[in-house]
Amino acid sequence: MTDFFKNIPQIKYEGENSTNEFAFRHYDPEEIILGKRMEDHLRFAVAYWHSFAWPGGDPFGGQTFDRPWFGDTMALAKLKADVAFEMFDILGAPFYAFHDADARPEGATFAESLRNLEEIVDYLGEKQATHKAKLLWGTANMFSHKRWMSGAATNPDPEVYAYAAATVKSCMDATHKLGGANYVLWGGREGYETLLNTDLKAERAHAGRFLQSVVEYKYKIGFKGAILIEPKPQEPSKHQYDYDVATVYGFLKDFGLEKEVQTNIEQGHAILAGHSFEHEIATAAALGIFGSIDMNRNDYQSGWDTDQFPNNHAEKAVAFYEILRAGGYTTGGTNFDAKVRRQSLDPEDLILAHVGGMDTCARALKAAAYLLEDDTMEAARRARYAGWEKDGAKAMLTQPLEVIAEAVIANNINPQPRSGRQERLENLWNHYI
Amino acid sequence: MTDFFKNIPQIKYEGENSTNEFAFRHYDPEEIILGKRMEDHLRFAVAYWHSFAWPGGDPFGGQTFDRPWFGDTMALAKLKADVAFEMFDILGAPFYAFHDADARPEGATFAESLRNLEEIVDYLGEKQATHKAKLLWGTANMFSHKRWMSGAATNPDPEVYAYAAATVKSCMDATHKLGGANYVLWGGREGYETLLNTDLKAERAHAGRFLQSVVEYKYKIGFKGAILIEPKPQEPSKHQYDYDVATVYGFLKDFGLEKEVQTNIEQGHAILAGHSFEHEIATAAALGIFGSIDMNRNDYQSGWDTDQFPNNHAEKAVAFYEILRAGGYTTGGTNFDAKVRRQSLDPEDLILAHVGGMDTCARALKAAAYLLEDDTMEAARRARYAGWEKDGAKAMLTQPLEVIAEAVIANNINPQPRSGRQERLENLWNHYI
Amino acid sequence: MTDFFKNIPQIKYEGENSTNEFAFRHYDPEEIILGKRMEDHLRFAVAYWHSFAWPGGDPFGGQTFDRPWFGDTMALAKLKADVAFEMFDILGAPFYAFHDADARPEGATFAESLRNLEEIVDYLGEKQATHKAKLLWGTANMFSHKRWMSGAATNPDPEVYAYAAATVKSCMDATHKLGGANYVLWGGREGYETLLNTDLKAERAHAGRFLQSVVEYKYKIGFKGAILIEPKPQEPSKHQYDYDVATVYGFLKDFGLEKEVQTNIEQGHAILAGHSFEHEIATAAALGIFGSIDMNRNDYQSGWDTDQFPNNHAEKAVAFYEILRAGGYTTGGTNFDAKVRRQSLDPEDLILAHVGGMDTCARALKAAAYLLEDDTMEAARRARYAGWEKDGAKAMLTQPLEVIAEAVIANNINPQPRSGRQERLENLWNHYI
Amino acid sequence: MTDFFKNIPQIKYEGENSTNEFAFRHYDPEEIILGKRMEDHLRFAVAYWHSFAWPGGDPFGGQTFDRPWFGDTMALAKLKADVAFEMFDILGAPFYAFHDADARPEGATFAESLRNLEEIVDYLGEKQATHKAKLLWGTANMFSHKRWMSGAATNPDPEVYAYAAATVKSCMDATHKLGGANYVLWGGREGYETLLNTDLKAERAHAGRFLQSVVEYKYKIGFKGAILIEPKPQEPSKHQYDYDVATVYGFLKDFGLEKEVQTNIEQGHAILAGHSFEHEIATAAALGIFGSIDMNRNDYQSGWDTDQFPNNHAEKAVAFYEILRAGGYTTGGTNFDAKVRRQSLDPEDLILAHVGGMDTCARALKAAAYLLEDDTMEAARRARYAGWEKDGAKAMLTQPLEVIAEAVIANNINPQPRSGRQERLENLWNHYI
Repeated sequence: MTDFFKNIPQIKYEGENSTNEFAFRHYDPEEIILGKRMEDHLRFAVAYWHSFAWPGGDPFGGQTFDRPWFGDTMALAKLKADVAFEMFDILGAPFYAFHDADARPEGATFAESLRNLEEIVDYLGEKQATHKAKLLWGTANMFSHKRWMSGAATNPDPEVYAYAAATVKSCMDATHKLGGANYVLWGGREGYETLLNTDLKAERAHAGRFLQSVVEYKYKIGFKGAILIEPKPQEPSKHQYDYDVATVYGFLKDFGLEKEVQTNIEQGHAILAGHSFEHEIATAAALGIFGSIDMNRNDYQSGWDTDQFPNNHAEKAVAFYEILRAGGYTTGGTNFDAKVRRQSLDPEDLILAHVGGMDTCARALKAAAYLLEDDTMEAARRARYAGWEKDGAKAMLTQPLEVIAEAVIANNINPQPRSGRQERLENLWNHYI
Repeated sequence: MTDFFKNIPQIKYEGENSTNEFAFRHYDPEEIILGKRMEDHLRFAVAYWHSFAWPGGDPFGGQTFDRPWFGDTMALAKLKADVAFEMFDILGAPFYAFHDADARPEGATFAESLRNLEEIVDYLGEKQATHKAKLLWGTANMFSHKRWMSGAATNPDPEVYAYAAATVKSCMDATHKLGGANYVLWGGREGYETLLNTDLKAERAHAGRFLQSVVEYKYKIGFKGAILIEPKPQEPSKHQYDYDVATVYGFLKDFGLEKEVQTNIEQGHAILAGHSFEHEIATAAALGIFGSIDMNRNDYQSGWDTDQFPNNHAEKAVAFYEILRAGGYTTGGTNFDAKVRRQSLDPEDLILAHVGGMDTCARALKAAAYLLEDDTMEAARRARYAGWEKDGAKAMLTQPLEVIAEAVIANNINPQPRSGRQERLENLWNHYI
Repeated sequence: MTDFFKNIPQIKYEGENSTNEFAFRHYDPEEIILGKRMEDHLRFAVAYWHSFAWPGGDPFGGQTFDRPWFGDTMALAKLKADVAFEMFDILGAPFYAFHDADARPEGATFAESLRNLEEIVDYLGEKQATHKAKLLWGTANMFSHKRWMSGAATNPDPEVYAYAAATVKSCMDATHKLGGANYVLWGGREGYETLLNTDLKAERAHAGRFLQSVVEYKYKIGFKGAILIEPKPQEPSKHQYDYDVATVYGFLKDFGLEKEVQTNIEQGHAILAGHSFEHEIATAAALGIFGSIDMNRNDYQSGWDTDQFPNNHAEKAVAFYEILRAGGYTTGGTNFDAKVRRQSLDPEDLILAHVGGMDTCARALKAAAYLLEDDTMEAARRARYAGWEKDGAKAMLTQPLEVIAEAVIANNINPQPRSGRQERLENLWNHYI
Repeated sequence: MTDFFKNIPQIKYEGENSTNEFAFRHYDPEEIILGKRMEDHLRFAVAYWHSFAWPGGDPFGGQTFDRPWFGDTMALAKLKADVAFEMFDILGAPFYAFHDADARPEGATFAESLRNLEEIVDYLGEKQATHKAKLLWGTANMFSHKRWMSGAATNPDPEVYAYAAATVKSCMDATHKLGGANYVLWGGREGYETLLNTDLKAERAHAGRFLQSVVEYKYKIGFKGAILIEPKPQEPSKHQYDYDVATVYGFLKDFGLEKEVQTNIEQGHAILAGHSFEHEIATAAALGIFGSIDMNRNDYQSGWDTDQFPNNHAEKAVAFYEILRAGGYTTGGTNFDAKVRRQSLDPEDLILAHVGGMDTCARALKAAAYLLEDDTMEAARRARYAGWEKDGAKAMLTQPLEVIAEAVIANNINPQPRSGRQERLENLWNHYI
């Protein structure tokens, strides 16, 4: 045991009236919601990068966190893993997620980086064997090192494409070895800074082929998890190709991958793309590509990704409602892609941020589940579209325009508006929050 | 002749040094650019709605314009057409564009509205026969009347779908009769106000079927023009399904329409979706769905669609450069979907706004053409991607991940970053503006 | 009694477990919060314009609402007042607010408009005498008629300044006669569309003088209420001079009015200005110019003012917390500057939107009050600044730079960062929501 | 001479038709514009931080630039200064600007940092003596080191206030010694991350007192330059107190500093605050607090400060027009607070980015000057407000509301709207660009 979290107890569920900061008031892993344990609904994961690899810098300032594991040696990488699993234990988190670069020191060559990764993967595997937390997903960091500055699979330089292929292979191997439930691709540099030097069509073709080869490799190694694309419209690039869920869908269709790849949706990215979180989830569900979520919140007044811990359960309830409507997660989960503010220096801050986030999600899930079970909301929705259940309406969807037009004239059809009842439905919603 | 534009002369090209407000200084229809007359490159169109149907209202204020043709009679509709063609003549505009509701009075029934439309279409046909302006595109206004408040093809009420089908048929007939070069669909109410009462999946299915039937009807009547979707992310709806070019592409793929339907791209809509205008054009070109443009500008500090006349040729040059790279328009054109400010009350304002817009586009086109012909910019782009021309690089696009990974290790590939030279390319750009 | 709201009962408090749509579940006017009746804390007002004067139009569509009182006669204006007071009664609303143009038909001349206003003010006075609702504030609509298109007090045309002066006088008289608690000025056209035709300095000087004369007139007639400026950054104008609270403060200081005029703060306007609602309230409180609020919510993904009814009590609790910290309202109140969506056609929608909004605010107020009473949050805040209570620190605020600098060197001062504990405080917050 | 810029010639003016990348095509320092040399109008400055101290990192990636002077020794700091002055010479830049932290290594104590600063200031002084470039302004970096994470003058910890006071004193001394024309304060951490832990009122009071003491110290040491505040609304903080020009004005008024302090206005900051660049300049001019500008451009589709080199002279011309209308700079200048993209790795990129930026500004200045001299635009503006020149109108500004109201009725004043002619003025503008 390290002493980083010394004096911090394991977090237990104590109920709504608890005033203990170091307790859950809403997240009871064992509570049965819609026939399933809450833990199995929410499938919380801790993100290695924000909690253990980020030094607290921002574009205008440097490191604020003092962490005993900061540095570039394998010994420090193992210390980091030790502390990480201590935090997973304290939180009772069933999952975690990581990039290669979060967990292993960068080597002087690809081969050395790979050896470092393999060594730390073995170490993480040992940790998993003796702790509760499993791997929700692995991924490759192909955006921080300067070799990626102009893209990974979409780089103008084919050597970078090659390096990316080797990197993703190594991270898929690592994820497979650790029994990961998913493999995620986020393309922060798969985009452009200026159209003036960019061949959009070529870059898209390379990205499509790259993703096909990822799917092929999945089958080759027998990886059973899902492949997930994480949309983001911009930042760090001016424009990123995986702009939002609908854009990703068109891309998948183009390369024949819409049955093979799903999406990992993040609230902050949705907002940057001009969408609500629930919109992105509902769209992915409608298109059959909903996979998992990166849970956080964005500051609505800031124009960049703030990756804050969620703290408004009323807002999150709408998101969980769409997840439940979509049938809940299969391989996916609720990954806290969230970081404590760079002023939140203390080990307690790391723990309590997650406690608050988990409680926020638990409240949201419970409200969403009650509402779905109650069915009043869904009954209102069905009623609004009930006209489409009639035979004449269904038939119309196979008729040509001129036949429908004749009927409009013959029957003097003159549709009358009906109330959309938005405020009533919002009130209904609030009955459950 | 009406006397609305009395004392306003026909606008002629007088060259850069002219100080005559009522002259073109850059737009010379006869000038040959890249082997084609400037008029044939730009294919300018005047929008009937903004210039002749809009009363000057905004969300906080009512009518400011006094126009002798405002009112709901057929006689006034014809007066409006008279004035419109007088304006087309003054500008020498080769095209115009209109919605049914811009041109004809609304009837008490669909049948009456249709008769009104047919009568005014005959009148417009007579006008076309004796004036220069032809129809760039026709379209249906399925957003202003209250029947459309919850959508047209995506309305929860099948009667509205029927009414929409009949309406689009009538507008396609009108466009066909007038020899229109395109038919456009803009879905301002095809979206939602709240997810709480919306069935995303059903609405999408209805929209897809509707568009298929539009394409079928095009072939049935022998309409040779293009069918164009005009993307917009929001406004008036909170979310619109045709969010941006990439979203439209996924939708078209889903319904097998990506070879049948192209896009009509508007700067203001691009900006609301978080894109530059040139991004949307370049994306459409890369996806093979570029059709036409709605030329205007948005105020970058306002969060809604301001539909202002373009006045920055340096900015528009980037857009025209992408259009020229895509091969220029085929059926498409440069439609001024722009309105004079509601404080610009005078007939002169209407004319001069178009003169300024046309000159801005002409300057932009000329700069873009010079730059493309010079090839320095394109040579730099090709050089950046030259590595992909090598056999090894091409072969890599067919290799599995593990083969590439082996090569990375075997050859100790360690890609070195190369300058993206953005500022140099921007300077080069400015040589031509 | 009209029959507009027939079958809708008076809304009563039934407690959290009520499933009656037509009941309050949180708003109990009589409940004592921090020693004051909840009704006296919240001071709810209904906005005449959104609920009774708005036809349901938006920039892309016309009227959707059928209201029996729509039209331009005095008889219809009185019918509107009848229905309005019926709604105030149903809701138990203690206040309402109105513009002149909401309540009276526009006349052909100023004198006729004035007579109309005086007649309807008498009618409203009779209504007030026999109903519960009183006037929270009156105001002048100086943005809808085309005479205001280029501003009211800031118009380039001095005749418009004169007309504005006469209009405000008439509305102050009306407000005074009706015993209004405040008089509000919102300058939707006090701004510009383009700097090219604008004299910023002159317009600012005219606005300042105008506001001084409003304050002078207040004293002349013995009006005891507060004069309030309502900030908004833009819409309808590209730029509005009363951009946000801090901007208004500078303006008031410049014209010696910072003790005479306070602010009426709206969530939607705060968001358009890039602020949170609570920021604007806290800033006004810190500057001594907090007056009242316009309660609504903006859609965070829409770039214009959506004026929706509030439905997220967790979000509003932060706002009410700042109001309570500032000592609560004196003359101010919670005015629902909110409109039902244009698809919410039914009389029930109008009522239920307000019920939901009032319950949302009541929950928010209760949470805020508990939190403030508990003092844990405030204790944490005081602790963070406790260093400033020491004599040395206080003294430093009177010392010159060079003296402080000497002490830094002499004492080798090397300040160590301390955690800001943001997530902990957010968790604490959520204990009470 | 270092060899960093070897083979790069000094940049000379060669005229519009030059195709030499390494030449000015528009910036001719000696050209007389409105009676003054162009160099004396534009007063270009190079920013030390972006060009010499920034490693190329962004929130998602690390260093991309290899610069021989990167490191923390005094020898490297001097090498950096050598290269910097070589670049100033190549560009013929008359000015530069720097923060303490750009130029000197951080020491282990304040005293050591101060000694390092003094040594490098002496070195810079020697450089200035033998090169053309002078100091436009100095400033203190009070945002990068972790001690500033919660603010400098507004920090909850009085020790940080003390450290800030000592730091600013040292930077004012340095600026004074180097003959700087201005001293700038930018408060990137003078703001908050969350209201929950913030005492707005106290922080504002401390900031006000701090600024007063800066002004007092200026007089004490006999510094003749101007003190400038640089507004920015957010980033890095969620909210910054110096939000925009109008906010700064209110702050200055409150602390009696509006005659003592002016503003340094940046395009990127203006845009983040929801304003155009020209709005901020015109506002500062109207309020009497215009000082200097930080020249750059922001990407309109990115929600953070992109600090790009300007490349659209049409856009910048509007800004220079407002500067010329305000009488031009006195102590201020055009400081390139702009950085090459992190992919622009080469020494040539640094030089050419500045060449392009300088040419863009030169074209903009010339266009603005022609337009101002021509007076057509100003004549139109004066005509629009001409009504206010009449005695009756002037008198009205001293009359009470009731007197004006009587006149409105007595004279049946009914103001008629007049066209604002925005598009005409925009066309006029384009005659000169």
